[in-house]
Amino acid sequence: MTTRNAFLTHCRDNLGALKREGRYREFAHLEKLAGRFPTYLWHRPEGVREVTVWSSNDYLGMGAHPAVLAAATRAIAEHGAGAGGTRNISGTSPLHAALEAELASLHGKGGALLFGSGYMANQAGIAAILEALPGFIVFSDAKNHASMIAGMRGAKGASKVIWRHNDLADLEAKLAAAPAEAPKLIAFESVYSMDGDIAPIGAICDLAEKYGAMTYLDEVHAVGLYGATGGGISERDGVAARVDLIEGTLAKGFGVLGGYVAGDAEVVDYIRSVAGGLIFTTALPPAVAGAALESVRVLKRDPARRTALAERARALKSALDAAGLPRMDGPSHIVPVWVGEAEACRQVARRLLEEHALYATPINYPTVPRGTERLRLCATPFHTDAMIAELVAALRAVLPRTAPLAAE
Amino acid sequence: MTTRNAFLTHCRDNLGALKREGRYREFAHLEKLAGRFPTYLWHRPEGVREVTVWSSNDYLGMGAHPAVLAAATRAIAEHGAGAGGTRNISGTSPLHAALEAELASLHGKGGALLFGSGYMANQAGIAAILEALPGFIVFSDAKNHASMIAGMRGAKGASKVIWRHNDLADLEAKLAAAPAEAPKLIAFESVYSMDGDIAPIGAICDLAEKYGAMTYLDEVHAVGLYGATGGGISERDGVAARVDLIEGTLAKGFGVLGGYVAGDAEVVDYIRSVAGGLIFTTALPPAVAGAALESVRVLKRDPARRTALAERARALKSALDAAGLPRMDGPSHIVPVWVGEAEACRQVARRLLEEHALYATPINYPTVPRGTERLRLCATPFHTDAMIAELVAALRAVLPRTAPLAAE
Repeated sequence: MTTRNAFLTHCRDNLGALKREGRYREFAHLEKLAGRFPTYLWHRPEGVREVTVWSSNDYLGMGAHPAVLAAATRAIAEHGAGAGGTRNISGTSPLHAALEAELASLHGKGGALLFGSGYMANQAGIAAILEALPGFIVFSDAKNHASMIAGMRGAKGASKVIWRHNDLADLEAKLAAAPAEAPKLIAFESVYSMDGDIAPIGAICDLAEKYGAMTYLDEVHAVGLYGATGGGISERDGVAARVDLIEGTLAKGFGVLGGYVAGDAEVVDYIRSVAGGLIFTTALPPAVAGAALESVRVLKRDPARRTALAERARALKSALDAAGLPRMDGPSHIVPVWVGEAEACRQVARRLLEEHALYATPINYPTVPRGTERLRLCATPFHTDAMIAELVAALRAVLPRTAPLAAE
Repeated sequence: MTTRNAFLTHCRDNLGALKREGRYREFAHLEKLAGRFPTYLWHRPEGVREVTVWSSNDYLGMGAHPAVLAAATRAIAEHGAGAGGTRNISGTSPLHAALEAELASLHGKGGALLFGSGYMANQAGIAAILEALPGFIVFSDAKNHASMIAGMRGAKGASKVIWRHNDLADLEAKLAAAPAEAPKLIAFESVYSMDGDIAPIGAICDLAEKYGAMTYLDEVHAVGLYGATGGGISERDGVAARVDLIEGTLAKGFGVLGGYVAGDAEVVDYIRSVAGGLIFTTALPPAVAGAALESVRVLKRDPARRTALAERARALKSALDAAGLPRMDGPSHIVPVWVGEAEACRQVARRLLEEHALYATPINYPTVPRGTERLRLCATPFHTDAMIAELVAALRAVLPRTAPLAAE
């Protein structure tokens, strides 16, 4: 048998299994309408239909902010569509430099470094750190994002110790059990995307200091959203200065595209100099950098938008609770609704979309463990009370009776 | 010593060594002017100066094409700045779907899949293929790009055999020496970025058929530039149908951002379903997809732009040869000029910029082997005869006398 035939057979078998298990992903074609967020147009062969999107990571609606759009449009007119090169090959514009300075300032750090995505920032940034010193041990929260895990996997010579999610006692036990002289990195997130819970950053920094470890904090679901100027949970908790490296995204709270790492100027310069995922890829377009720069600046001085997000999250949670729907509890803007089985989860999402014109992504394995399948909802400042009421009524209609209902 | 102190010391030592060796990269701040490509504004503390850029990968100037800019601007107005989610979480717009269909058609394949960059397409795509079958052996051209190597390194359970660059006899010897029943993938590029030479794709496909191997072809420096409709060298040579997977970029010839893999529909659907670098990252902004879609469509019916690129490359090569400058010979649009030592290379580039207002990136280790440092030049359709004459005069002034001069 040729490789091609064996490979095609593997692809067919695998796709068939995904379909049988209800885990085959179909990407809905959703047309974002800048002036009407969170209303989208859902395109399918039968026609086009208006839907309300409940699963956007454009948490604050900054992707439709007039000042952000104006900055993007201006940059396209002035600088064109693409950067035309890597950061090192004519791809660093003054907008890239200004954005990096703004992000360093946002986190009170000496430097910041842009990547094409938060995924690349984690994958390339973590690998670059772990490969710097021989025998590095990374202490990884059990619920860390796939991109962080990719960075750890890709680091030659480093070893990984997984600690129980947000469990300080387990982290300390594992730090204490490791050789005292080994270099150590604690890698964790602030807001966990699929559960919506928040890490005790200060207490983790206490342990890092006690055991001489460095800290790497992923704030992708928090930057722009928390803290007095949008610096994330580390700013809100007043502990940003204690964290060695803060990683963030420009694609969620800031509504555009790209990722970054902020930290000590020399550390950032080192990562800049050695990370393959930075040097060997085209820089973000000037228009993306310009739009993101505007978004960071707008959000620095717009705490009202953060307040509105928190208020909308409370309103959504209250409405779900009042209706007795199985909401997974958590302190953040992310509101998971429990289903607990892959095919049921897919059917709930399908019925919400087809019968109620509501889009909520079904979250299945491997994004979450099997048996914990869920819908992941977020109310942005643009989700109205009427939209919340409509969502709750629809969920009552489509959630399976067999699911454990939190309030019953 | 704490990890932080040890790490900081490592960073300082390493940056110091890079500076001593002349390999420390400083990113020039270059402001692209959409209406005046390839003229940029060079920003530095002392002020701003106009320079001509000779190292852009916006090979055809599509990043400044009015139709591409109009498509980007229109998409921003209609759909906002960012996608707001992963492809699976509300981030797939009709523009993404149309672009994937257009790219599949460009290469005559059943499907195509967008990634955030060509780097991610290679890294995630190659790893997904190699992890599909146990005992996969990848036969990798010795000059393959860092992103392809990252994909091979990241593939659990696969082994790698490196064959001499573009050497069919060596490739065949290594295919023949491998177990007949092992799954095999031949991974190579069409146009090699740093040397400008071109692979014998058809002959490599002959060997793939003889030994039952699959083929993975990186066309990032060729798509848009070669072939009747911009499908790359595989289209030019009439062998696209024989290549299993064609990887390309939207950030060079097409002038925007993003990467993709095109192939059999089921294979692409499989990669879509399993590649972490696709599922766990925000989709490209609708405006990027819209601009790229317009660029692909424009270039499909604009062979004159490809002809102009080829003519300009010939003009640049002839002018360098006539001046007796040490050009590295090659059949493509990429024109390397030999320097052969890192610090000298850096100094040549610095003097070109500071004394002659010409930007050409110095290419050092690890991008090329030590002792083969070079400038890498490309004449786009927008580089005039006068610009070429200016470049040649400047190179005569700044190239070290000790460099081997090709025509002397």
